[in-house]
Amino acid sequence: MDHIKSAIRTIPDYPKPGIMFRDVTTLLGDAGAFRAAVDAMVFPHAGKKIDKVAGIEARGFILGGAVAHQLSVGFVPIRKKGKLPHSTLSQSYELEYGTDEVEIHTDAIQPGESVLIVDDLIATGGTAEAAIKLIRSAGGEVVGCSFVIDLPDIGGAKKIEAHGVKVASLVAFEGE
Amino acid sequence: MDHIKSAIRTIPDYPKPGIMFRDVTTLLGDAGAFRAAVDAMVFPHAGKKIDKVAGIEARGFILGGAVAHQLSVGFVPIRKKGKLPHSTLSQSYELEYGTDEVEIHTDAIQPGESVLIVDDLIATGGTAEAAIKLIRSAGGEVVGCSFVIDLPDIGGAKKIEAHGVKVASLVAFEGE
Repeated sequence: MDHIKSAIRTIPDYPKPGIMFRDVTTLLGDAGAFRAAVDAMVFPHAGKKIDKVAGIEARGFILGGAVAHQLSVGFVPIRKKGKLPHSTLSQSYELEYGTDEVEIHTDAIQPGESVLIVDDLIATGGTAEAAIKLIRSAGGEVVGCSFVIDLPDIGGAKKIEAHGVKVASLVAFEGE
Repeated sequence: MDHIKSAIRTIPDYPKPGIMFRDVTTLLGDAGAFRAAVDAMVFPHAGKKIDKVAGIEARGFILGGAVAHQLSVGFVPIRKKGKLPHSTLSQSYELEYGTDEVEIHTDAIQPGESVLIVDDLIATGGTAEAAIKLIRSAGGEVVGCSFVIDLPDIGGAKKIEAHGVKVASLVAFEGE
């Protein structure tokens, strides 16, 4: 995954001092790295029944749209509160200070459908955990989660695996 | 395109009374309609040199990610102001009341690269026009624009074509 890791740009002190921001836009803009990333996000779940891909707003929309196209399945957006136009289920999750909320359309998933969750990065796992709860509340089964980047020291992947969900990530940045 | 049109959900009086909101999430969630839409967004530009796909936040990220994957090219996000982490070019555009601003990373496009713009819907064409200006400022050439939905009575496609850019849309909703 060196090809993928080297395509990610690191921006020091963004959005605030001390944070090393991992910018996937350089990866997305690189035809070979983007395609390799999509393949590698699909590969760990090969052979499983996947009916839909759920992408988390906003970078998870880009990767999730591509993964859904690769798998020839439908795409379900998981959006920040107030962005979806029809009736929704909501789930709050904790931020460093305060809480935030994500939503899914109530009818986005048919009972028993298997869903793969896609986002660019897992840190605390709070958003991904909220996404799992939303998909299960809507009647779906979560096949797994695929991320480009894991920050393993923060422990998000362990939090997700505690829900019985397989986590796949392509590259890890340690020490943060 | 009846298959695609019938997969779009109309929500009356959203986000305010008198507006018929065209909701593409039902199309995205339908494996066949999603795939057919991506094919049909690519088709009008077949045979042209396309180096990158630029998707407009947020629904244009889902469709643009899939179109970029289909073409095996890189993806460039055009985001609302303040969302991109590196140095940006900005372009304002008019809303019904007031103005808004979109941005592109300064280095997202190499000089002479050909870019296809993707979004879910064209109404006034204000955002797409801003996207064209951004791509040209960054040194790129705009191959064309692909939308799922055109609202022809509002005249956005004509505004874009006045910039010498080909506009392709899959379905039209008249009388709005």
